[in-house]
Amino acid sequence: MKFEAIAVEKIPLIHKGDDLPSIICERIELQDRDIIVIASTIVAKTEGEIFRLEDIIPEEQALEIAARTGKDARFIQAVLARSREVFVEAPFMLVTTLAGHTCVNAGVDESNIEHGFLLYPPENSDASASKLGNELERISGKKLSVIVTDTNGRAFKIGQTGVAIGIFKIKPIKRWIGEKDLFGKTLEITEEAIADELAGAANLLMGEGAGGIPVVIIRGLDYYFEGNTSIKESYRPEDMDVLKKGLRCLRNKR
Amino acid sequence: MKFEAIAVEKIPLIHKGDDLPSIICERIELQDRDIIVIASTIVAKTEGEIFRLEDIIPEEQALEIAARTGKDARFIQAVLARSREVFVEAPFMLVTTLAGHTCVNAGVDESNIEHGFLLYPPENSDASASKLGNELERISGKKLSVIVTDTNGRAFKIGQTGVAIGIFKIKPIKRWIGEKDLFGKTLEITEEAIADELAGAANLLMGEGAGGIPVVIIRGLDYYFEGNTSIKESYRPEDMDVLKKGLRCLRNKR
Repeated sequence: MKFEAIAVEKIPLIHKGDDLPSIICERIELQDRDIIVIASTIVAKTEGEIFRLEDIIPEEQALEIAARTGKDARFIQAVLARSREVFVEAPFMLVTTLAGHTCVNAGVDESNIEHGFLLYPPENSDASASKLGNELERISGKKLSVIVTDTNGRAFKIGQTGVAIGIFKIKPIKRWIGEKDLFGKTLEITEEAIADELAGAANLLMGEGAGGIPVVIIRGLDYYFEGNTSIKESYRPEDMDVLKKGLRCLRNKR
Repeated sequence: MKFEAIAVEKIPLIHKGDDLPSIICERIELQDRDIIVIASTIVAKTEGEIFRLEDIIPEEQALEIAARTGKDARFIQAVLARSREVFVEAPFMLVTTLAGHTCVNAGVDESNIEHGFLLYPPENSDASASKLGNELERISGKKLSVIVTDTNGRAFKIGQTGVAIGIFKIKPIKRWIGEKDLFGKTLEITEEAIADELAGAANLLMGEGAGGIPVVIIRGLDYYFEGNTSIKESYRPEDMDVLKKGLRCLRNKR
């Protein structure tokens, strides 16, 4: 049993409206059950999610946070506009986005694009993954899954890993229910976060900075799933999220 | 650019004192810069970290937590004995272990071994990784890295992923410092948690339950590092850990 992770090389700099599925299929021959892992930065670029910092008008909450933290109020406004809750303001803004993803700066990125511009994540990464996936399947004639990824920090440790923020034809969580362990004892429900493990694996080839490998194919696994799926299935329900409760406890003390 | 993840098949049930490096080398021919990912469960078994539940005498704190939560006081005692701080008692015990790893139940496991026994994680997973790695290098004559892994849950999402709990001849965090992004702008320090991404990648083949693939080789990357390393380098310093501060805030309100 094995799998391969293959970088799709020489993807050009991406611009709004570029046909990413064609660009990918011109550079690699896809196979059934391939998982196409695509960095959200290029998905966002094709969707035109680039905005000028100087066009952003900070509103009251952004100005207040800027006053407290010394950060650029326009950047904060961009983050707030995409967030439904702010847990931490400094030294970084930890939020839950409108899409339900908890991460720093709502995924708003000021690196990798010309200075003075911000790159927003795709507005709906599941929808982006589906659009790309359907077109990739049409062009190639193969059964394909797609994972749109970002890099995020994590709890209790430093450093970032690749994470899934949108998916197509793959379940985000694989459930091992009622299977027996090596001694015949029935396992309680075990949930393996395969979409995030795949995103992390791909990130080993994607790298950061000018490495510039925004598409990686993972080949040899059997996760193709034709039903409806959403990355939201992996978000912890609010009432079961003790870490959020802790952050609110801190916030209420301020 | 690509890498492979290869399951080492037909590893037998492991017992105390088994020669894991020989068992591995008999089943796969290793190459320079291979990363050997080994599930902590089998490392713990070779090290004899199996204890009878009935031999554990719960002390006062364990009895108090058991009274509050209804859990088995002996199991709680086993967790407490390996923990330096308890953040959450129920519905699961979230602790920081003596080794500095923040996880559920201090990694104490009651699945996959005969009923009535607990399997503890290796006492020092970096030391275990080094011992295994040195022997693997000696037998094979190759330059090898080792990662000892467990499966852990994560913040804000459901499900578990493979994570690194001990390492040998690989840095846990790859730093991309001062490299320029695609537009020539110098990146701030970016830290990629490669040991955890590798652990997650390997876990895609390891599975849970009776799947029973406790060793996976990752081949094709260039992370071999001969200096001293420790997984502790990846743990967030306490004074910079806002999530722990939040959990303490909740705990102080009880």
